[in-house]
Amino acid sequence: MQELKEKILKEGKIKPGNIVKVDSFLNHQVDVEFMRKIGEEFYNYFKDKDVNKILTIESSGIPVAFAAAEYFKCKIVFAKKGETINQSSDFYQSDVFSYTYQRNYHVRVAKEYLNENDKVLIIDDFLANGAAMEGLLNIVNQAKAKVVGCGIVIEKGFQDGGRKLREKGINLLSLAIVDKIDVDNQKIEFRGE
Amino acid sequence: MQELKEKILKEGKIKPGNIVKVDSFLNHQVDVEFMRKIGEEFYNYFKDKDVNKILTIESSGIPVAFAAAEYFKCKIVFAKKGETINQSSDFYQSDVFSYTYQRNYHVRVAKEYLNENDKVLIIDDFLANGAAMEGLLNIVNQAKAKVVGCGIVIEKGFQDGGRKLREKGINLLSLAIVDKIDVDNQKIEFRGE
Repeated sequence: MQELKEKILKEGKIKPGNIVKVDSFLNHQVDVEFMRKIGEEFYNYFKDKDVNKILTIESSGIPVAFAAAEYFKCKIVFAKKGETINQSSDFYQSDVFSYTYQRNYHVRVAKEYLNENDKVLIIDDFLANGAAMEGLLNIVNQAKAKVVGCGIVIEKGFQDGGRKLREKGINLLSLAIVDKIDVDNQKIEFRGE
Repeated sequence: MQELKEKILKEGKIKPGNIVKVDSFLNHQVDVEFMRKIGEEFYNYFKDKDVNKILTIESSGIPVAFAAAEYFKCKIVFAKKGETINQSSDFYQSDVFSYTYQRNYHVRVAKEYLNENDKVLIIDDFLANGAAMEGLLNIVNQAKAKVVGCGIVIEKGFQDGGRKLREKGINLLSLAIVDKIDVDNQKIEFRGE
């Protein structure tokens, strides 16, 4: 998505540790008008897939999921993160390892909001190593629902989350794939350019 | 808002501890179409106040804020929660005591996304004792921005957050005020009925 790449180049801040901060429009301040365009991109790509539910994870996936759901005219469910270890029969639950914090956390979704009849589009703002996404896929599998595809705003192409999902045959649409972040020269390279 | 009250009565689950769970449409699964109606209510009430930014707090305030921002045609900022204690010159930061978890946490907003020219509408899904809202007001004050008002989906009228805000002269719109939750009889009483 050309407009997204331009926005990343214009507003993104490159930080040490392969970080590109886009909190001016995506995950702290949210540019609602632009988010609608992102939602529309996901809709145009997945509109023939009978999506009836969008699954995301708190917090920064929520605005993206919301914008997309307005086009799909469906509900969203946002998985909750927590340190809860005890299993509950009311929830589908999955372990996720956070590389940032170097510890496990749980994502969970109440069973009543995901079932075998659902055709689920999973949406998130970032895809890096794919740990959170694996957790969400695991939850959808537990619910015996169908994963129609995954929609990501920014994929870090130099980490292997995207590759692993594609190898699994997941229909993954990343609106921008960052292949290289050059802190010294403050440059970003996108895939396909 | 009559339609909201009906939805609470229809879908809300009353639990011990004065809890009314509305995670079928508000804070786990999100009914996007209904959320737009909520956004429109806030817009109709605050539309003459020159709102240029909507402030909320992660996670469940985000869908409400997003829906409202589509009507106001403005950006949203969602304050982040964390246990970080160290002050940072890049953030406005405020302590909030969580009665649920019986401990302090921090809410923070990057300074670049809130400034003295902003006319801020603060939005959240629930208002109970008002601790989170006090934290957000404090942050807006630190930024020397103007609080135009607060928009709440469900106020727990039997806790004193709403009263305290009104006494301060804050223009508070709560779309439904729950005055009593009767677990034994599974009944909810709304203010003004």
